Amino acid sequence: MQLFMAIPPSLTALRSILAKRKLDAYILTSCYAHYGESIPLFADRVQRISAFSGSTATVIVSKSEAVILVDPRYAIEVKQSVNHDHFSSFVFDRASGGLWPSVVKPDGVVRKNGGIHRIGFDPLALTGAAFRAMQASIAAIEKEEDRPELVPIDGNLFDETAGDLPRPSSPWFVHRHTDNTVQDRIERVRALSKGIKATHLVVSCTDQVSWLLNVRCMAVPNMMGVIAFAIVPVAEGEPVTLFADRADMKENKVDEVLEAANVVIKPYEDFTAALTELAATAGVKLACDTSRVASTPHFISNLCNDEDVKKALTTKLFPVLEGITYLTDAEVKHSFASHLRDSAAITSFLAWAEKQGLADTDVTEFDCVEKGHEFRSRRENFLGPSFDSIVGFNANAAIIHHKPTAKEPGPTIAPNTCLLVDSGGHYLDGTTDVTRTIWIGPDAPPPALVRAYTVTLRGHVVMAMARFAQPYTYPMVDALCKNEFWREGMDYAHGTGHGVGYVGGVHNSVIASANVAMGSPYPAPPLKPNCIFTVEPGVYDYDAGFGVRIESDYVTQETDVEHPTRKTPFVECAPLTIVPFERALIDVSQLTKPQVDYLNAFHAKCREQLTPLLQKEDPLGYAYMKRQT
Amino acid sequence: MQLFMAIPPSLTALRSILAKRKLDAYILTSCYAHYGESIPLFADRVQRISAFSGSTATVIVSKSEAVILVDPRYAIEVKQSVNHDHFSSFVFDRASGGLWPSVVKPDGVVRKNGGIHRIGFDPLALTGAAFRAMQASIAAIEKEEDRPELVPIDGNLFDETAGDLPRPSSPWFVHRHTDNTVQDRIERVRALSKGIKATHLVVSCTDQVSWLLNVRCMAVPNMMGVIAFAIVPVAEGEPVTLFADRADMKENKVDEVLEAANVVIKPYEDFTAALTELAATAGVKLACDTSRVASTPHFISNLCNDEDVKKALTTKLFPVLEGITYLTDAEVKHSFASHLRDSAAITSFLAWAEKQGLADTDVTEFDCVEKGHEFRSRRENFLGPSFDSIVGFNANAAIIHHKPTAKEPGPTIAPNTCLLVDSGGHYLDGTTDVTRTIWIGPDAPPPALVRAYTVTLRGHVVMAMARFAQPYTYPMVDALCKNEFWREGMDYAHGTGHGVGYVGGVHNSVIASANVAMGSPYPAPPLKPNCIFTVEPGVYDYDAGFGVRIESDYVTQETDVEHPTRKTPFVECAPLTIVPFERALIDVSQLTKPQVDYLNAFHAKCREQLTPLLQKEDPLGYAYMKRQT
Repeated sequence: MQLFMAIPPSLTALRSILAKRKLDAYILTSCYAHYGESIPLFADRVQRISAFSGSTATVIVSKSEAVILVDPRYAIEVKQSVNHDHFSSFVFDRASGGLWPSVVKPDGVVRKNGGIHRIGFDPLALTGAAFRAMQASIAAIEKEEDRPELVPIDGNLFDETAGDLPRPSSPWFVHRHTDNTVQDRIERVRALSKGIKATHLVVSCTDQVSWLLNVRCMAVPNMMGVIAFAIVPVAEGEPVTLFADRADMKENKVDEVLEAANVVIKPYEDFTAALTELAATAGVKLACDTSRVASTPHFISNLCNDEDVKKALTTKLFPVLEGITYLTDAEVKHSFASHLRDSAAITSFLAWAEKQGLADTDVTEFDCVEKGHEFRSRRENFLGPSFDSIVGFNANAAIIHHKPTAKEPGPTIAPNTCLLVDSGGHYLDGTTDVTRTIWIGPDAPPPALVRAYTVTLRGHVVMAMARFAQPYTYPMVDALCKNEFWREGMDYAHGTGHGVGYVGGVHNSVIASANVAMGSPYPAPPLKPNCIFTVEPGVYDYDAGFGVRIESDYVTQETDVEHPTRKTPFVECAPLTIVPFERALIDVSQLTKPQVDYLNAFHAKCREQLTPLLQKEDPLGYAYMKRQT
Repeated sequence: MQLFMAIPPSLTALRSILAKRKLDAYILTSCYAHYGESIPLFADRVQRISAFSGSTATVIVSKSEAVILVDPRYAIEVKQSVNHDHFSSFVFDRASGGLWPSVVKPDGVVRKNGGIHRIGFDPLALTGAAFRAMQASIAAIEKEEDRPELVPIDGNLFDETAGDLPRPSSPWFVHRHTDNTVQDRIERVRALSKGIKATHLVVSCTDQVSWLLNVRCMAVPNMMGVIAFAIVPVAEGEPVTLFADRADMKENKVDEVLEAANVVIKPYEDFTAALTELAATAGVKLACDTSRVASTPHFISNLCNDEDVKKALTTKLFPVLEGITYLTDAEVKHSFASHLRDSAAITSFLAWAEKQGLADTDVTEFDCVEKGHEFRSRRENFLGPSFDSIVGFNANAAIIHHKPTAKEPGPTIAPNTCLLVDSGGHYLDGTTDVTRTIWIGPDAPPPALVRAYTVTLRGHVVMAMARFAQPYTYPMVDALCKNEFWREGMDYAHGTGHGVGYVGGVHNSVIASANVAMGSPYPAPPLKPNCIFTVEPGVYDYDAGFGVRIESDYVTQETDVEHPTRKTPFVECAPLTIVPFERALIDVSQLTKPQVDYLNAFHAKCREQLTPLLQKEDPLGYAYMKRQT
């Protein structure tokens, strides 16, 4: 309860400053200038003020009220974790108009009691896309006098009243598992920048700065990236400026490596002033990632205002994103190696979990999370999880983002359980994301589960077997997978897959499937060789007591298939994830002959590649793998 | 030779006026303000000046040269039809940078000899998209002094020198095969316009004006549409203004119907001045179809310059296009009826062609074009062809746009021929587009042809059997079809299909498959119910001596499939085209069980529905149909 006790003073303090700044309300977000899988506590003002335990919410504090807005995934979590004496909570969905309209509309949950006209926000803790969405909702308000004003305030008012927390500190290191040096990266980005007519790139996302400078650290949970800003002049020879804490670079002498590559290191705090000054310089045309992922803060995207650049970015990727999306050959080779080790770890976990279930032990879902982590930790080059593991038994497997915790460890394992595990790791030589669903006997699985698994497997395998003519894109091909579900009247309420960053962020949303990409007015990038992405269809039937998802990582590779009707090369998917599928849940009669051939060949590959990693080290896992394949 | 003799004077006259207008060159296009399947002679200045026999080219006349630029489809035609004493020809492709860069770049074919700086054009005979493409190419030219200037000239200089031809005249009639009146159409468009924030819509395309006012005529070959402009004020009660030749409306009293619906009819020639005046009026926000199809003339799209409207049109369809794309239930019902009659006509044609081939007659490809037309003409409500028929025997079938003519009728039919026929008709109650490929025995077909046909059929049937979760779009689902080819290493160099207008233009490019849509920065519209589109994959192997295409028209319909994982309805494809597939070319072993079941059910439907139309009227066609099904 301590955390709840601490909140009212910070709320009161924030409120007291509102009047001084002539504001009627202030926005706190779960978002910060460097974006990523998770947000460090210093920047998570939503958690700090409200104790909300989920990962994304928005808090609006006015003189008399404090509202926390969450999407339907967090409907239960917000009730359980937030003190409703001080906050009212609101679950927005399409029916309520979505998040930002709920905030700015006169009859929305935030403004419905009147008196809110000037709404302040921290321009580094709100994305440009969010700002534009609010603007659009405001423009749609009929009467001009009903429209609120959005007021950017330099610095964060919550930090000002509740006190800054230090940014997390972690030693930086040069990322050696690539054939590119920092000079190579900068050169590549400069070459790509010519196509967008910018003079300078402004880079703020954790994974983007890390990729650009070929550095990593472990400051932020689940992310392999640094907390820093970079400004890249497109002109050759001009230094790249990095805004970051030099102290973190000392241990591994990263500052020396960067300075040798003509990177000028300035204090983190200098960024805002430096960018403002640069933007005001004649002839400067700034570019930032407003293209697709749109996670760039309002402060930066507001300064990147050149019409030519903005137009170019409607058809071309932001150069740093282009680099993150298409790996080098050496990085792909590393990815094969790291994924194989990860596959061995997951196979070991599945064998262990099956044994626990058959023995009816008191292993919980959260124990499974920890055990999975333990198996990964034993493997070479492991750094940490790439996201919080999802583990669900039976009906819990139907909750798409079910993440057991030490506080809520979930049920204990039992015979005849459907187990879904979705987890991933960062290794020095790659990032993984894998989901398997298994049946723990001893009885035969229910036919509805077998049907769901077989349809899911069919969808997965259709994608895995597909060849793509360029320039097809992920949103154009994920219908291949969905079609297998649609034919059965089924569907899943998430994308078919997403890009996977290379030792950065596990979600590279440049590659995203149709239902995610639908919102973007920009064309998706083509599936050229050396893209890594997941294929992860599923069937979620809570009432029937099961959920199924089958996820592997694939990398696009050029094929040498030739045919008179096709002169240019095809791209096909090579599996990086080498974990067997669940034999007990496959109804072979519902597969085509080529699909059965593909699965047999894949399982032969599992045997061949996993044997050296399991045979001696983990006899249980080895026996399980042999049985499944 | 008469035509060639006549050309030099018109070239000379045009050149003489260039100096007077201070121009170095002038652009003539195969494009006019009303766009459509074909261009009437009065507006086809390219044909009139050069005698070019293809359907699309661009001519640039300068003081000393005249260059005709064509895409690779017309490489042979341009050589054969254009007099190279007076014109040089140039085939542009991606390697040469495309059409417009070839025109404007200093080292391009048009400007490489120097002296061309001011290039004039008719702003009603050049699309806004073409203008923007030229501008972009010009902006990319490094040195400012190398950049040419584009000069819009009111009126067409060719017409001014060679003389106007009259616009084709044809009596207008009210289109009764719909449940919508002109008032309904205008109301629907007004309702849709609120979402794009425009005050007025400017409509110029033949099929769009015709849809809006619910009128048709046969002035332009292959198009069921009027030559007119319309301006629609979004405000209720304000009259729609139509710019057209009232004389054409008299015979069927169409003017009275329109005036009763508060449409003001003004002379065609008044349009330019009226739009210019309207655009200069305070508070006016014009919208035109710049959204996707981008066939709007530069003159109009230049005046439609409101930023809010332009932005809205990046995510919403131009309201008139929305109306054309999603039919009413009554129109869908009519389409089923017209397509069935059309299917009977094509079945009769296939039976007749097979008989001619087996008998080794001297029937040519062009005879087949005429015979197909004859079979259609016998059917109720037939108006005319919806495009020039494609008929190819053997290797000619591999030429995607092979259109035999009276002058070049092609080879004569023989036993053991692969015949491809792609044709369509306008009926009062619908527009069709259908392709069948058949094998004329008596011998067994070559295995390579059977393989190609079976793969094509598989791709076709996968689409036909698919259900789509909304809001999937055509570019997102055509991979379902292409995947069947990709798996075999095959591909086809055209889209999988296109939307079909309802008694308008046979190509409604709002619905277009991936390779067409890739160029558009705008999202494709969702496959909601009541869209009509084609599915037309193919395999083209000229060297092997055959081409295969299988094309049917489908309409999207909501299904009542229910499943716990899918709460909202699916959309599926109902076949409008009821013509049997070619039994002799199907290798059943390469189909899945559900595909075989689908084909058997489809052929049963052919028997059931075609029998009443063929049994008495065409015993030969009836016997053929029974044999094939």
